[in-house]
Amino acid sequence: MSIWRRLSLFVLASALCSCPCRAEDSAMENIVTEKKAEESHRQDSADLLVFILLLTLTILTIWLFKHRRFRFLHETGLAMIYGLLVGVVLRYAIHVPSDMNNITLSCNVNASPATLLVNVSGKFYEYTLKGEISGSEVNDIQDNEMLRKVTFDPEVFFNILLPPIIFHAGYSLKRRHFFRNLGSILAYAFVGTVVSCFIIGLLMYGCVMLMKQIGHLGGDFFFTDCLFFGSIVSATDPVTVLAIFNELQVDADLYALLFGESVLNDAVAVVLSSSIIAYQPEGDNTHTFEAMAMLKSFGIFLGVFSGSFALGVATGVVTFTKLRDFPLLETALFFLMSWSTFLLAEACGFTGVVAVLFCGMTQAHYTFNNLSPESQERTKQLFELLNFLAENFIFSYMGLTLFTFKNHVFNPIFIVGAFLAVFLGRAANIYPLSFLLNLGRKHKISPNFQHMMMFAGLRGAMTFALSIRDTATYARQMMFSTTLLVVFFTVWICGGGTTQMLSCQKIRGFLEQSCLMMGFLCVQQIGPDGVERRSTKQESAWFFRIWYNFDHNYLKPLLTHSGPPLTATFPACCGPLARCLTSPQAYEVCTLHAHSGLIILCGTRFSSLFYVDCFIWLVKENFIIVFIGDITLHIKDDKNSM
Amino acid sequence: MSIWRRLSLFVLASALCSCPCRAEDSAMENIVTEKKAEESHRQDSADLLVFILLLTLTILTIWLFKHRRFRFLHETGLAMIYGLLVGVVLRYAIHVPSDMNNITLSCNVNASPATLLVNVSGKFYEYTLKGEISGSEVNDIQDNEMLRKVTFDPEVFFNILLPPIIFHAGYSLKRRHFFRNLGSILAYAFVGTVVSCFIIGLLMYGCVMLMKQIGHLGGDFFFTDCLFFGSIVSATDPVTVLAIFNELQVDADLYALLFGESVLNDAVAVVLSSSIIAYQPEGDNTHTFEAMAMLKSFGIFLGVFSGSFALGVATGVVTFTKLRDFPLLETALFFLMSWSTFLLAEACGFTGVVAVLFCGMTQAHYTFNNLSPESQERTKQLFELLNFLAENFIFSYMGLTLFTFKNHVFNPIFIVGAFLAVFLGRAANIYPLSFLLNLGRKHKISPNFQHMMMFAGLRGAMTFALSIRDTATYARQMMFSTTLLVVFFTVWICGGGTTQMLSCQKIRGFLEQSCLMMGFLCVQQIGPDGVERRSTKQESAWFFRIWYNFDHNYLKPLLTHSGPPLTATFPACCGPLARCLTSPQAYEVCTLHAHSGLIILCGTRFSSLFYVDCFIWLVKENFIIVFIGDITLHIKDDKNSM
Repeated sequence: MSIWRRLSLFVLASALCSCPCRAEDSAMENIVTEKKAEESHRQDSADLLVFILLLTLTILTIWLFKHRRFRFLHETGLAMIYGLLVGVVLRYAIHVPSDMNNITLSCNVNASPATLLVNVSGKFYEYTLKGEISGSEVNDIQDNEMLRKVTFDPEVFFNILLPPIIFHAGYSLKRRHFFRNLGSILAYAFVGTVVSCFIIGLLMYGCVMLMKQIGHLGGDFFFTDCLFFGSIVSATDPVTVLAIFNELQVDADLYALLFGESVLNDAVAVVLSSSIIAYQPEGDNTHTFEAMAMLKSFGIFLGVFSGSFALGVATGVVTFTKLRDFPLLETALFFLMSWSTFLLAEACGFTGVVAVLFCGMTQAHYTFNNLSPESQERTKQLFELLNFLAENFIFSYMGLTLFTFKNHVFNPIFIVGAFLAVFLGRAANIYPLSFLLNLGRKHKISPNFQHMMMFAGLRGAMTFALSIRDTATYARQMMFSTTLLVVFFTVWICGGGTTQMLSCQKIRGFLEQSCLMMGFLCVQQIGPDGVERRSTKQESAWFFRIWYNFDHNYLKPLLTHSGPPLTATFPACCGPLARCLTSPQAYEVCTLHAHSGLIILCGTRFSSLFYVDCFIWLVKENFIIVFIGDITLHIKDDKNSM
Repeated sequence: MSIWRRLSLFVLASALCSCPCRAEDSAMENIVTEKKAEESHRQDSADLLVFILLLTLTILTIWLFKHRRFRFLHETGLAMIYGLLVGVVLRYAIHVPSDMNNITLSCNVNASPATLLVNVSGKFYEYTLKGEISGSEVNDIQDNEMLRKVTFDPEVFFNILLPPIIFHAGYSLKRRHFFRNLGSILAYAFVGTVVSCFIIGLLMYGCVMLMKQIGHLGGDFFFTDCLFFGSIVSATDPVTVLAIFNELQVDADLYALLFGESVLNDAVAVVLSSSIIAYQPEGDNTHTFEAMAMLKSFGIFLGVFSGSFALGVATGVVTFTKLRDFPLLETALFFLMSWSTFLLAEACGFTGVVAVLFCGMTQAHYTFNNLSPESQERTKQLFELLNFLAENFIFSYMGLTLFTFKNHVFNPIFIVGAFLAVFLGRAANIYPLSFLLNLGRKHKISPNFQHMMMFAGLRGAMTFALSIRDTATYARQMMFSTTLLVVFFTVWICGGGTTQMLSCQKIRGFLEQSCLMMGFLCVQQIGPDGVERRSTKQESAWFFRIWYNFDHNYLKPLLTHSGPPLTATFPACCGPLARCLTSPQAYEVCTLHAHSGLIILCGTRFSSLFYVDCFIWLVKENFIIVFIGDITLHIKDDKNSM
């Protein structure tokens, strides 16, 4: 039973737990209903407990794997396996007799109202609409209560579990390398996802036509359905691959390309799929091609995407610098702002998930710099925890649902076709685009990087959430079952083979780059010759050079305490205005830039074992290291534990 | 609309957003329903946004108050005021025309099933039972959609919002002073709450009898209802007072007495109220006195309380010491353990809130010591944030509900009686018990402490959650309305007058004691004469001295890394066993005890302004101060900001 239905049962329990102050038969009746409600509440708590224990088990096993440096199975893959096991047990081992407490009413109402009042022998009961169910499901509903009990409402994924994951992705985008590769990332995310969607859609349409010919199709399957399938499986989620990249300190540019692409193509896929659903030609045949409807869909795509983008950026930019003395208030406000971005976007008819993504990115770029050090740590940790819990929950639920979902449609031809289409769609995204991008890039995307990106096209939480959102028709059910298999395959096989693939492609990590990426607060590293060794702006295309300059010289100083003081960047004539807009902190940060070969280590977000490697490297390279916080203690711990 | 109903509407939206692949009229019908669902989803997002903005506004105003050191209004009082304002606006300013989408059905079903299938001209719709509603409410339901939309299901408070608050209270119980006053705290919490409950119950019964005589009673009101009222308003919540105590560094013993009592009496009140509801005499008259039913209620009280206690302690004691290298996993596991305690208790038929309280206390006492420093900080901050959000949400909802709740029964006689009864009940709790306790205490509870405790008997979140849980009958509605007024009055008047009351009672803060309480990790402070200046065990009664010794010498070393090594406390003959059970860290901690006049400061949870005062005091007293972490930086910040 969904957690929401569970909660509404709590309500039921309370509503029926009214005082026993009526005539005896009424009182007895009340007691019976009360007992039933209490039992149901207990059952619900027990169900939820199963999920929690599942997560606990996953965490303990992850710890074991991390401790033993076992890299073949990521935590998400593990969560799926545990979910599968529990699903098997629920489906085949536990048999709960149905108590037949559903009653089918036939009424002559001509609508299905949201709230229904039922007059049962003088007493009124209030019912809330849950949704339409197909005729074939009517018996199922009375059939297996147990499996229904562990089924969450699909919208929970979209409105509760996905937002923290997406926000965290935006909030933790490695910004330096992200901006250096912004052009390529945008190309992969926008052009690539659209190309992939249409390639997969066309291939699947061919596949469906074939199935129709040989009579393997049990229901309607239109071209829009195929395109929809293309859009949902175009959302890549290389969480497994990136975790291994992190551990092995793989090339920072490749990391940025993959991570940036996967984050942004989620947003593109969500909006794309909703635009495809919105394709509604007028006239008799609702599935013919019509230019107007097509244009309208395109307009919806542009409108929703840019609206969500603008909204996310706007709320992300809102700065609060005065709350630094009260980290609790600051963190709470930060959390509420991110949540209100989601709600505001949904209330305006935009896509909350997309807005939250851009909100996270903007907050990481501007607001983060204004937070007190304690709040910076707190917000990072909070969203890291939420992301961790939500992600593992989704993946274990994925495993569970393979056995507990009752309307699976596994069609061998469709499945084989889908795997082929997913492969070809990814290839049509990566290789031609890389070729085009390499024409303009100074640092070419090498062939082995391209193969790695091709290989890292895992499907994950977003694909699952989009496919489970609607499983009412035959087409959607077949898509859902196939999507599940695609996710399982890519997470286990591609995820598990990352280490092999990396060594096979001879992609080595650059420890130095990784050190700077892994969350160290690197206060600009200047070599002995006094020349900046690494500069984002010189390596980017002209457009981004302009943007970088504008951002670094004007936006950052204006919106945050970091960056050069405005007095240095504004023209001389605007001196008084610049002085007035520059915060005292900006000058302080500046003085730190003067030291040569200086690394300031702050916080210990990264894996402690990796940390020791990094530290040794830094010492070897004769860096001056300044410790802030309790890092020294951690090093001691690490050495003890080794 | 409740968040759960909101979520179920999301489901409705998705269920109806199926592909447009039927005949045209069906498609058109679908589009209409789809649009309706989408609009409803938008409306729901907007409603939730109102609550978020309310919280945001509260946070900003709290910041202003804290910044200006304005102590007359606490954040909870403020949240209530904002809630009230929004309630007024929703009630009187916004007028949404009802769309009359409720249909009353008359059916010949002899039960109210949890799930209802309605057959509307061939299509099946699934409905979920929300609860019974009284005949008078039937029209209301169709009346004002808007007010219903901002009404949360009452069980949300009990199952979502209260647990983090209660857990946080348990987790942050100041343990040293708590255990020093354990006997008194238990007396106030158990004896005091029961006395208060029965005094209030009896007085209210007198009041109700009077009302019946003069015809002011509009419905049934039994003695059990009066007792129930007594139990719910016996749960004190001096959050406002304690916040001011914290800021003003008021006497640590008084703080411990008040905080400990308020935390534990919540648990007593919850179990007490559920035992009163469970009072079900057999036979014709369900409201006469019957010894068996009474005994059964008493048995339920004992059983549920001790069961919840045992369960909370058992899960709280579970230690995990191996995950120290991965703070994220550790924190996630800690969070899941606390949540599963709640669910386990609910699944077993105990009270989740009580179990969570004792789980928090046990975890603070044992598990906390095993966490890595980073996780200690993370878990504290996480629960602090959850507590902050939940508390402010409940208080602002309280304000809102004064205007949006539609079945208020304000009866002047009952209200006056209730205020009188609450006052007398508190007096009958504090003064006689203090007199009895002072007979046995070395450190007497002085009269001005007693007056302060009397004054600090605020009612808050728990009282509200218990009273809103069931508002089906006339009696419950009157209780709910009266309880709201009691909460408003106590939070605003008693909370706002705390500073005056303190100076009037001449209660001064002992900076020294506060320093040790405020979260400083004080590693035993030994004076120059080598005698321990402050010892918990010597100042307690013999029973607690025994317990303290056992806990300190055996339980703590066994379950945590702190305390003396077992090799020192076990008899010599058990040497090998003790060596085997003692962790290496225990020896390390021990060496720290050897320094004289040593204070180790760790972390900066406390208010930064207070911190400077404390620091100055410590320097004056010639303490050797060892800083761990980034405290030095904070001091600099503080001085700059002053």
